[in-house]
Amino acid sequence: MHFKLFPKATYKRRREVLRTNIGSGLILLMGNEYSSMNYKDNTFPFRQDSTFLYYFGLDVAGLAGIIDAESGEEVIFGNELSIDDIIWTGDLPTVREMAAEVDVRNTAPYAEIGNYVKKALSAGRTVHILKPYRPENKIRLAEWLSVPVAEVDQKVSVKLIKAVVAQRSHKEAIEVAEIEKSVSISVDMHLAAITGTRPGMKEFEVAARVEAVALAANGRLAYPTILSIDGEVLHNHYHGNTIEDGDMVLVDAGAENDMHYAGDLTRTYPGGKQFSSRQAEVYNAVLASMDHAISLLKPGITYMEVHRQANVKLLEGLKAIGLVTGDVEEAVEAGAHTLFFQCGLGHMMGLDVHDMEDLGEQYLGYTDTLIKRTDFGWKSLRLGRELEQGFVLTVEPGVYIIPQLIDRWKADNQLPQFINYSLLEQYRDFGGIRIEDNFLITGNGHQLLGKYLPKTLKEIEALRNY
Amino acid sequence: MHFKLFPKATYKRRREVLRTNIGSGLILLMGNEYSSMNYKDNTFPFRQDSTFLYYFGLDVAGLAGIIDAESGEEVIFGNELSIDDIIWTGDLPTVREMAAEVDVRNTAPYAEIGNYVKKALSAGRTVHILKPYRPENKIRLAEWLSVPVAEVDQKVSVKLIKAVVAQRSHKEAIEVAEIEKSVSISVDMHLAAITGTRPGMKEFEVAARVEAVALAANGRLAYPTILSIDGEVLHNHYHGNTIEDGDMVLVDAGAENDMHYAGDLTRTYPGGKQFSSRQAEVYNAVLASMDHAISLLKPGITYMEVHRQANVKLLEGLKAIGLVTGDVEEAVEAGAHTLFFQCGLGHMMGLDVHDMEDLGEQYLGYTDTLIKRTDFGWKSLRLGRELEQGFVLTVEPGVYIIPQLIDRWKADNQLPQFINYSLLEQYRDFGGIRIEDNFLITGNGHQLLGKYLPKTLKEIEALRNY
Repeated sequence: MHFKLFPKATYKRRREVLRTNIGSGLILLMGNEYSSMNYKDNTFPFRQDSTFLYYFGLDVAGLAGIIDAESGEEVIFGNELSIDDIIWTGDLPTVREMAAEVDVRNTAPYAEIGNYVKKALSAGRTVHILKPYRPENKIRLAEWLSVPVAEVDQKVSVKLIKAVVAQRSHKEAIEVAEIEKSVSISVDMHLAAITGTRPGMKEFEVAARVEAVALAANGRLAYPTILSIDGEVLHNHYHGNTIEDGDMVLVDAGAENDMHYAGDLTRTYPGGKQFSSRQAEVYNAVLASMDHAISLLKPGITYMEVHRQANVKLLEGLKAIGLVTGDVEEAVEAGAHTLFFQCGLGHMMGLDVHDMEDLGEQYLGYTDTLIKRTDFGWKSLRLGRELEQGFVLTVEPGVYIIPQLIDRWKADNQLPQFINYSLLEQYRDFGGIRIEDNFLITGNGHQLLGKYLPKTLKEIEALRNY
Repeated sequence: MHFKLFPKATYKRRREVLRTNIGSGLILLMGNEYSSMNYKDNTFPFRQDSTFLYYFGLDVAGLAGIIDAESGEEVIFGNELSIDDIIWTGDLPTVREMAAEVDVRNTAPYAEIGNYVKKALSAGRTVHILKPYRPENKIRLAEWLSVPVAEVDQKVSVKLIKAVVAQRSHKEAIEVAEIEKSVSISVDMHLAAITGTRPGMKEFEVAARVEAVALAANGRLAYPTILSIDGEVLHNHYHGNTIEDGDMVLVDAGAENDMHYAGDLTRTYPGGKQFSSRQAEVYNAVLASMDHAISLLKPGITYMEVHRQANVKLLEGLKAIGLVTGDVEEAVEAGAHTLFFQCGLGHMMGLDVHDMEDLGEQYLGYTDTLIKRTDFGWKSLRLGRELEQGFVLTVEPGVYIIPQLIDRWKADNQLPQFINYSLLEQYRDFGGIRIEDNFLITGNGHQLLGKYLPKTLKEIEALRNY
């Protein structure tokens, strides 16, 4: 095989659990295709669907799998290579051979799926599907389910979503081992950035070094790298700026290893050799918030509470600087922290960097009784539920000074009892700081995943000793 | 702008020529969206559609453009950022500001396209579209044209295809300058591979170095890198082998620069310091074929004829080695070369590495009177037509020893008068060699594009002097 697999019993066991949880009907899991870049045959690197990988393991385009929850029949659908194909591709394993590697006995041509699905529907059976995020799969599902493309999303099985989330949320030991590898590759990516940056370099030159580390480990980027002197722009993939002494460089980058598990780390370091004293003060406020959040990680606490306490700690730090005034618990209750930290403290991580995000955050990060909040800041917290042993998650507090947001709050005279707007005005061009590590929730606490990546001010500055 | 543009008059002029050539109806050019990797919001790097780039220049997702061939009205459709978006993205130019940069006066929300198209259709006007290679665009076009998704391809405008091909085939001087930059970055990618490979390295470790060079130049890969000790496997993107002394490493890699023009180069070099004498003999046969093909490049000759002569030259070399017997002109006429060289000598290159491939090879590489051949080998020649000044193309002869193909030919006793099967049997594990450079067709000849990349045996071995 040109790809790695866990022992075949792993996949069989996972499918058995899923089948038992679903109980009746057909479970249809779509694999992915190559995605076209600028014409059909010029493609982006292949990325298999994570749920398909979890249950069927096969890291090859053009497949789908069915599990009959009642009979237990399992079928992998895919097309065998013709002898003409083999001249261009060399000898590759057949679909039947690949299926055997994940303990699936039955295979059929891809075109058979439609009949299989239609037969089940006409017998009055439920066909459980997940929401397709690839449009080609949406087109196919529309055809097989005989509904307009725009209505496919309404056919999604909440029962299947919940069953998949229940399994994938609790990482097996073999999965944790793979995540550790990805995080360690990610650590090397960050070390390459921190030690390799020099004033005068373009952001894309540093980003190239970061990505090369992932590629040289037979991995790839788990997500598009954020590498910017404008760390306060949260959705920022522009890499065209020149890094100068006095800037801070925010790097949010992680590897996906050859088993497709993600790492997700962030560091912020000076463009020159040292942070300014103003930068150092805010950096330490973020780090104190992070350390406090980490100390809370254990089964039983909700991540909403960890997020809340991290923000209280953050505002304590900002109060010491003078940017925040008043009671910090009350300030967080009122939402004052969202002027500095607009997003969530972290998210689940696994085969996806935002694990299972396509399955829906309400199912994944919350519960039937714990509903995601809709107010600014809190609505961006992807994970809120009670932590359980086996969860893998990120902790990523930050401070982002967003001039447009300050202007809006000032215009609305928002929370003047907690915000020192006149001092904040002097920080308009401050930028952003984020620090992020990845953790496993253990039986009674937590464990840092991967190698240690320096994070204190002193440690970071020591790496900038060029 | 976070992207580069040619002077705005360039785009205006190109659209005027297109409008004049089409004459009536609406021309609808679809821009691209981000493509999802493993969930909706985790995306591959954005790649704009090349034809949209050519006429509208804007390197941003979520746009489409309409040119009214009769009234001359031009509209760019796209959604403006909300104030909430700006908090996450920072200040970005508006659609209206971007449109002005390419001399388009009218803009409208993306959702307006449907009405615009439906209004034209109901007035009995033609809406000229190109074939969509992105499924999300196919879904949209189906809705706007009120046809099933499966029938969108039948709505394609051959008139528009031919008009676009006529323009994009003749590269402007500003385009040639960009291609030169991309080829020169590609040269550096190959130098990194050739000088950086050591026996014992994994293919992916070398591939990482190759890609890093493109990234560090603010470019990216123009197509997935082929980097393999199994150079005879033509559709090969596996990078898991270990490179040993005695192997040959075939690297087919090219950069796309920050204006999205492609380079496309191939070199084959020894895994150790030197080629074996057997490898060297075949290498020189391929190089002689290449040099002969290059010498023929000028306006007026068909690329089919260049391909034919390149193969005659190749078989001359293989005859000297003893692998081929008989008259080499007759051998090529009979198709004997296709046992060694199964594909085409080259293709057009520009904003796409296989330029305009999605528009259809018959329109692009052939003409109404010169039809693409359908026999083995020849059917893989993407470019056959008479060369014209301004064409940019690749020359990439090779020898690929494919055991499965030899077995099939032997079983069929195919062309025994031209093939020395018993000697060929000793070459079963030989592998593959390809050498490729990029050329502009000038008024009376041709010009090598980009920096010179060493290609003779001596030059290559000199770079392997580690």
